[in-house]
Amino acid sequence: MPLISKEEYLTSLRQLGHRVFIQGRQVESVPDNPISGPGAMAMAETYYQAEHSPELFTARSHLTGEKINRFAHIQQSPEDIVKKVVMLREMGRRTACCFQRCAGMDAINSVYAVTYDIDAQYGTKYHERFKEFLKDIQSRDIVPAACMTDSKGDRSLSPSQQEDQDQYLHVVEETKDGVIVRGAKLHITGGVNSHELLVMPTRALRAEDRDYAIAFAVPAETKGVTFIYGRQPSDTRRLENRRPDVGNLYFGGCEALVVFNDVFVPTDRIFMKGEYPFAGRLVELFAANHRTSYGGCKVGVGDVLIGATAAIAEAQGTDQASHVKDKLAEMIHLNETLHGVALASAARGRQTPSGSFAVDQLLANVCKLNITRFPFEISRLAQDIAGGLMVTLPSIEDQEHPEIGEYVKKYMAGKAGVSSETRMRLLRLIENMTLGTGAVSYLTESIHGAGSPQAQKIMITRLADVATAKSCALSLCGLQTLV
Amino acid sequence: MPLISKEEYLTSLRQLGHRVFIQGRQVESVPDNPISGPGAMAMAETYYQAEHSPELFTARSHLTGEKINRFAHIQQSPEDIVKKVVMLREMGRRTACCFQRCAGMDAINSVYAVTYDIDAQYGTKYHERFKEFLKDIQSRDIVPAACMTDSKGDRSLSPSQQEDQDQYLHVVEETKDGVIVRGAKLHITGGVNSHELLVMPTRALRAEDRDYAIAFAVPAETKGVTFIYGRQPSDTRRLENRRPDVGNLYFGGCEALVVFNDVFVPTDRIFMKGEYPFAGRLVELFAANHRTSYGGCKVGVGDVLIGATAAIAEAQGTDQASHVKDKLAEMIHLNETLHGVALASAARGRQTPSGSFAVDQLLANVCKLNITRFPFEISRLAQDIAGGLMVTLPSIEDQEHPEIGEYVKKYMAGKAGVSSETRMRLLRLIENMTLGTGAVSYLTESIHGAGSPQAQKIMITRLADVATAKSCALSLCGLQTLV
Amino acid sequence: MPLISKEEYLTSLRQLGHRVFIQGRQVESVPDNPISGPGAMAMAETYYQAEHSPELFTARSHLTGEKINRFAHIQQSPEDIVKKVVMLREMGRRTACCFQRCAGMDAINSVYAVTYDIDAQYGTKYHERFKEFLKDIQSRDIVPAACMTDSKGDRSLSPSQQEDQDQYLHVVEETKDGVIVRGAKLHITGGVNSHELLVMPTRALRAEDRDYAIAFAVPAETKGVTFIYGRQPSDTRRLENRRPDVGNLYFGGCEALVVFNDVFVPTDRIFMKGEYPFAGRLVELFAANHRTSYGGCKVGVGDVLIGATAAIAEAQGTDQASHVKDKLAEMIHLNETLHGVALASAARGRQTPSGSFAVDQLLANVCKLNITRFPFEISRLAQDIAGGLMVTLPSIEDQEHPEIGEYVKKYMAGKAGVSSETRMRLLRLIENMTLGTGAVSYLTESIHGAGSPQAQKIMITRLADVATAKSCALSLCGLQTLV
Amino acid sequence: MPLISKEEYLTSLRQLGHRVFIQGRQVESVPDNPISGPGAMAMAETYYQAEHSPELFTARSHLTGEKINRFAHIQQSPEDIVKKVVMLREMGRRTACCFQRCAGMDAINSVYAVTYDIDAQYGTKYHERFKEFLKDIQSRDIVPAACMTDSKGDRSLSPSQQEDQDQYLHVVEETKDGVIVRGAKLHITGGVNSHELLVMPTRALRAEDRDYAIAFAVPAETKGVTFIYGRQPSDTRRLENRRPDVGNLYFGGCEALVVFNDVFVPTDRIFMKGEYPFAGRLVELFAANHRTSYGGCKVGVGDVLIGATAAIAEAQGTDQASHVKDKLAEMIHLNETLHGVALASAARGRQTPSGSFAVDQLLANVCKLNITRFPFEISRLAQDIAGGLMVTLPSIEDQEHPEIGEYVKKYMAGKAGVSSETRMRLLRLIENMTLGTGAVSYLTESIHGAGSPQAQKIMITRLADVATAKSCALSLCGLQTLV
Repeated sequence: MPLISKEEYLTSLRQLGHRVFIQGRQVESVPDNPISGPGAMAMAETYYQAEHSPELFTARSHLTGEKINRFAHIQQSPEDIVKKVVMLREMGRRTACCFQRCAGMDAINSVYAVTYDIDAQYGTKYHERFKEFLKDIQSRDIVPAACMTDSKGDRSLSPSQQEDQDQYLHVVEETKDGVIVRGAKLHITGGVNSHELLVMPTRALRAEDRDYAIAFAVPAETKGVTFIYGRQPSDTRRLENRRPDVGNLYFGGCEALVVFNDVFVPTDRIFMKGEYPFAGRLVELFAANHRTSYGGCKVGVGDVLIGATAAIAEAQGTDQASHVKDKLAEMIHLNETLHGVALASAARGRQTPSGSFAVDQLLANVCKLNITRFPFEISRLAQDIAGGLMVTLPSIEDQEHPEIGEYVKKYMAGKAGVSSETRMRLLRLIENMTLGTGAVSYLTESIHGAGSPQAQKIMITRLADVATAKSCALSLCGLQTLV
Repeated sequence: MPLISKEEYLTSLRQLGHRVFIQGRQVESVPDNPISGPGAMAMAETYYQAEHSPELFTARSHLTGEKINRFAHIQQSPEDIVKKVVMLREMGRRTACCFQRCAGMDAINSVYAVTYDIDAQYGTKYHERFKEFLKDIQSRDIVPAACMTDSKGDRSLSPSQQEDQDQYLHVVEETKDGVIVRGAKLHITGGVNSHELLVMPTRALRAEDRDYAIAFAVPAETKGVTFIYGRQPSDTRRLENRRPDVGNLYFGGCEALVVFNDVFVPTDRIFMKGEYPFAGRLVELFAANHRTSYGGCKVGVGDVLIGATAAIAEAQGTDQASHVKDKLAEMIHLNETLHGVALASAARGRQTPSGSFAVDQLLANVCKLNITRFPFEISRLAQDIAGGLMVTLPSIEDQEHPEIGEYVKKYMAGKAGVSSETRMRLLRLIENMTLGTGAVSYLTESIHGAGSPQAQKIMITRLADVATAKSCALSLCGLQTLV
Repeated sequence: MPLISKEEYLTSLRQLGHRVFIQGRQVESVPDNPISGPGAMAMAETYYQAEHSPELFTARSHLTGEKINRFAHIQQSPEDIVKKVVMLREMGRRTACCFQRCAGMDAINSVYAVTYDIDAQYGTKYHERFKEFLKDIQSRDIVPAACMTDSKGDRSLSPSQQEDQDQYLHVVEETKDGVIVRGAKLHITGGVNSHELLVMPTRALRAEDRDYAIAFAVPAETKGVTFIYGRQPSDTRRLENRRPDVGNLYFGGCEALVVFNDVFVPTDRIFMKGEYPFAGRLVELFAANHRTSYGGCKVGVGDVLIGATAAIAEAQGTDQASHVKDKLAEMIHLNETLHGVALASAARGRQTPSGSFAVDQLLANVCKLNITRFPFEISRLAQDIAGGLMVTLPSIEDQEHPEIGEYVKKYMAGKAGVSSETRMRLLRLIENMTLGTGAVSYLTESIHGAGSPQAQKIMITRLADVATAKSCALSLCGLQTLV
Repeated sequence: MPLISKEEYLTSLRQLGHRVFIQGRQVESVPDNPISGPGAMAMAETYYQAEHSPELFTARSHLTGEKINRFAHIQQSPEDIVKKVVMLREMGRRTACCFQRCAGMDAINSVYAVTYDIDAQYGTKYHERFKEFLKDIQSRDIVPAACMTDSKGDRSLSPSQQEDQDQYLHVVEETKDGVIVRGAKLHITGGVNSHELLVMPTRALRAEDRDYAIAFAVPAETKGVTFIYGRQPSDTRRLENRRPDVGNLYFGGCEALVVFNDVFVPTDRIFMKGEYPFAGRLVELFAANHRTSYGGCKVGVGDVLIGATAAIAEAQGTDQASHVKDKLAEMIHLNETLHGVALASAARGRQTPSGSFAVDQLLANVCKLNITRFPFEISRLAQDIAGGLMVTLPSIEDQEHPEIGEYVKKYMAGKAGVSSETRMRLLRLIENMTLGTGAVSYLTESIHGAGSPQAQKIMITRLADVATAKSCALSLCGLQTLV
């Protein structure tokens, strides 16, 4: 059965020979490094869940008929997409951070559909190649990281107009067996925890940008590939030996800058090369699939924040105040709104020519645009209920100090029976999610992950049927046409 | 086939002997009175659509197997609920107002499910009785109005505690063949355009309020029933002979106060009598079904407002301004958010013990709470784009005046080719929807229809799974319990 | 003493020979026409208050030393501007609508300052001329209407580029004694209740638009001037003999289209002619002064809406519900925010070269941009608390009907002691302010009066000191410059 | 002259023998400890500015006639309060954090006024005593920290009802020369950087809580006083030797838990003892004065965030995108709204019986309630414009690494001429302000500092004149009274 255990995954990651740097130092083992460990554990949780909650976390491969991790599955129905959204919410609840495996899942679904379309137009053989790659992913239960965003240089210029041609990843040389590429991909979620890198163009391209219309996969340990780990607020609290202060004891999201310095890609791992009219289409489809995912994962993270806030209110004896109840209801309302639109986008999914299913694109963009807003309000309400102590709290070492520890225990205790440490742990968790490493996942990534708000506004304008709306309006006031 | 035409419906309405008052005068024919006519025409449009768009507007009766109007259908699957939501959006687009038939539809679905539950508990025979009533509705293609909200008197007192016992409709006498009831139902949507009145309790009841736990149906022309038509902003513009000034040329919503002054209800039309524990359940189920409906109809009305706004921007030459494009995108975004949550509530619908399907109640309440907010912002943006002329515009009679008409035509014209009258018609439509009769449907009803915002907040708090959220949070910061 | 009574004002208006059309009919007496009467009464209230609250409503003329109506005063200090804002709030509370006299007040303050600047640059004599005009205004206690907005034709073209040159008011002929002008001014607040028309350009102009750089005053009854009264929602309720249904029993705002069809302007009433670089400056100064005014008048109207909402909550027995108290607090908070920024803009006013004082322009624009938003939210909350009955209420004639009147009285009564009519009157007032004639003043005019939101955003960007903010930021992260 | 230099201040702090703990370790010198140093530098900046911008940062003492730091001044006019607000904005711009000295300033102004009132009622001599204390503060140019918030234990119980009586600071013993107190004060802003502690009750008190009605001052180094420094997100980045990663290179806010373990207070430093009816009044006055201050300091911090955002947009070449310009205008608009209401609260200040001036309390609360909201939206917009790189950026050590440094420099550079380090510094500053130590000051403290949102809502409800508003409404719809 192509499902490996959490421990097997972590072992595979320890053995992966990829080149990772964190704050100027090369990392020996990603899961064992205190900074990057929690990120690996979040990814590992997707393996754990497949073992322990198989009904939601596994699916039947349409290629092999085998039971596979749902994160490696090609969606075969709207119900499959709904299950994805529900699964992502569950993962968000378990980890309270970005668990990183959905980007790859959404990428394989997008490349699967678009390679079919390219082949139909150009008579190429990308789709079969991709299916082979996919079978490998599924059968070994490994993680492909989605690599899309280029560094972009001067944003007012197209790829080929850049002074430094490498600002968009591109083919620098063609060889007999493949191509050599150069460039960098930014913000690569879970990159350091992935076995393969699935690279896609980052924008619509024109004929003169043909060399940038390249999609492919290479193993993470390929020569020329370097990962540079991104810093997060409070990241080095993980280096302290004071566990409660870290907030989220187990998990964290992570992103990296991935440099491709003259990397060789063999022909059988190339899924687009020069078919520039399909670059935009691939970007849009991936964006749509991924934007819907945010209505799963971020909602699950929101659940944790709501739960932590309800718990701290109880711990502090304010849970029966009418304004606290109202604010909690508002947090839930906003969170469920996010989820609702994602579910709708999933349930209204449509079949692609390749046979797989993709989300409703308009609703996917609507979902994501709300995601760029509501988590900030939910966080604000959480901080409102939690109280200012969240950011003025002594450290756990103060509590354990022989002289002053008693003061902390006495004056930081909550309502009857709630110890200062219980209160501190909950406040640190809320701090983590709204101002710490967790806030990267819950807030900033909610704005920019899967594309920034303006990208969603543009897609919403493009996808909405304003023409019909106009004609309804004209008709109701007795007009045929404007002019 | 149990489907009648729009004309047959209007004829039936003309022949209906119900007692209707508008502004102090009794009405002879509801569809022919200039004030109430547009309301009847909106209801009639549900007949027109069943004839012309049967795939969406009709369904197969699960009782008789016959093709019936979808508004008379008991939902047999989540897909049926999704179709309902889509149908309501389509109706909203066609009428730009409340078309009134969904309240009855949601009521029959709710009474259907709850009578089954009552019977299961008490061994009564309500469900079969109700099915008979329903067959009559379906086979004659007639409209039952949902009658729920009582006048309520002093809101701090329960029904039986009221000084005036009639502030909640109740049984005043039991006879051999039935009961006699007294009271009034407020805000009865489409009441004057309905053939039957389907009466339900308005709140959860306790043992001492047993006499108020009464649900039944009577024909609209029953002795003792009086309808008093509600006033709307700009309602009397319909009396003027200046059609464009009315904004929406054809349609309008309507509500009435329905008085039950010692009305006899025969036993075979009684669907609950004294089973007070089920009163709250019926209210909640109807509320949930109906709250989801708002994510259909109001979204369709929103489409018209978006269309009218896009059209007036074009007419005035501002459609390419970046802030106008951004505001239109925002209007669409908000409107689709409303729709998305409704679709999710539908798609996640679950089977009731009776076999029928009902919406996901949490999402239904979330849907409606957004409805109490977003249409106001959409309206504000529409007015922003439309410009102040919307409320300073001369009347159509000024334009047709021999002396000053030329001034109006000259100075009110839009960009090249757009006549002053075109501009006026569009502005009057937007005025209708944001400050006129249409605003009753689109704004105020969006707050209070199917229950006020606070009712949704209470349900959201009750239905959300905060306990699981709390336990996820505790676990992530290393706690078992609070105390 | 140059102060006339309310009655004298109304008499002067009756005697004014200006040409006014309402819905296709010429009006004999503006204050006596049922449609336009309430507008005249609102203006008349400024006379009433000067008599009864002279400490706030009068000032000492800096030209003559005489006690004058503050609406005719040139601001001599920040305190004068603060008093203006406070006076406008008081007027808003008294009338619950646009009382129209502030536009003229803000216009005379702006023309006063800018004519001084023009003279300083060009050696012209406009300022002295304008002082003469102003003395006349002050000594006769008459009203000048501010006439600014042109019809604008195609908005992508400048005045001189328009196909129809009259889309911006302009000089069509120069005579020995003055000039002849043609064009139209839209949305002229209180125009039909004013004795004089003070005309200004509507935008910044370039050399080729020199003929449009014209500012002047003419009496309202001047030959060639025609007023066409704008329609408002529910305007014809005033024609019914059912006073309570009208909502606001006494007052209303009004706007008109004012056509200048070859109107002669004598030289001594011309205040700008061809000095195009000052057109934009005049517009900006008037806009700033007027934008601050909105933080007075609309706040007073908001007070009435808050008061009506608090009263209906009490009448319906919901005033102690925590969510109602919270919503009322929010309404107050938003309303006071509007007022606060206006007061700040006034208190931070600065002296112009002419010696008069003008508001802080940045804060004036900030004030107005909030005005384009908060009244909509305040209205939504008012409707939330008021309940749906506001738009489903029978008419007063139903209550007085011999047969059904008792039903209305019984079922529409509020909590103990509150009659149905009391409840109806309050609900009709809220309806008036949020969906009726009052909503024109409170909502739509709050968006577009004194310039639309985008105009404020542009000014805010222009007036804010972002350069200093940038340099603070650079310095704190250790940078000198970006490049 | 009673003004000391920044260096003299820092020396005084080094010599202060107060007992401070940070993360379990006692601190030798607060300004020299890497964690607490930036906090001391922010406070020190108030000394620097008094020297370099004396016109704004100094005032004339009304007690001694000498030139003093404005932070030690008792407000003598509304203009004095306006200057305070402007000064605080300037300080916010200079430091981008909480500079801590305003709490003491607002406290001395409040105790000054209320001691006068207590004396008037009880014939006590607190006011003269306080003036002596104040002269000492002014003449030595030292900082008193405002100590108000108690630990509060079970919030549903009053102080004397607590199981642990020390949950509110109280008198435990009276001696011949003074009293002995016990308890703790939380969130004490700038406590560790202050020479004196000015202690006040935290809530309204009743007769049975008389022992808690205690106000006094003691030097920071008094026996029994312990400071425990609060943790902040990313606080330990200051321990790294990688300056740019810290974001704000120079400054930071700080709070501490201050424990009073049987601390002796001499009689001449007691300013309230047992006069419980004045406890609430002191709290309200301090709250009002301090709530207005937030419309100065946070606005200045907002300026820096706006400046940093404008700079990064320019650095990344997106500053001309219409949506970026719109978002920046919105950020400015929100920031200026905050400032406007504060200025209004100041300009409308009124004289207290003591002769000093205090803010308009209604506007002060309105100001602060906006502060609990807008900085979150400003931050969200800043993150939107900044881009996701803010949280995925490599560290400065990666850039300086011999092997991978070139990748960072190449792929992290901005538009032409903007180095990767410039971009990193700006992004780290925005990170600091929205997710790091600066976010404590700008976000969480904006909610809870000077009292939480609900406290403002309660005061707004209490202070607003709803009675007049109601009577205006009743009158306009023709009613005298409700019943």
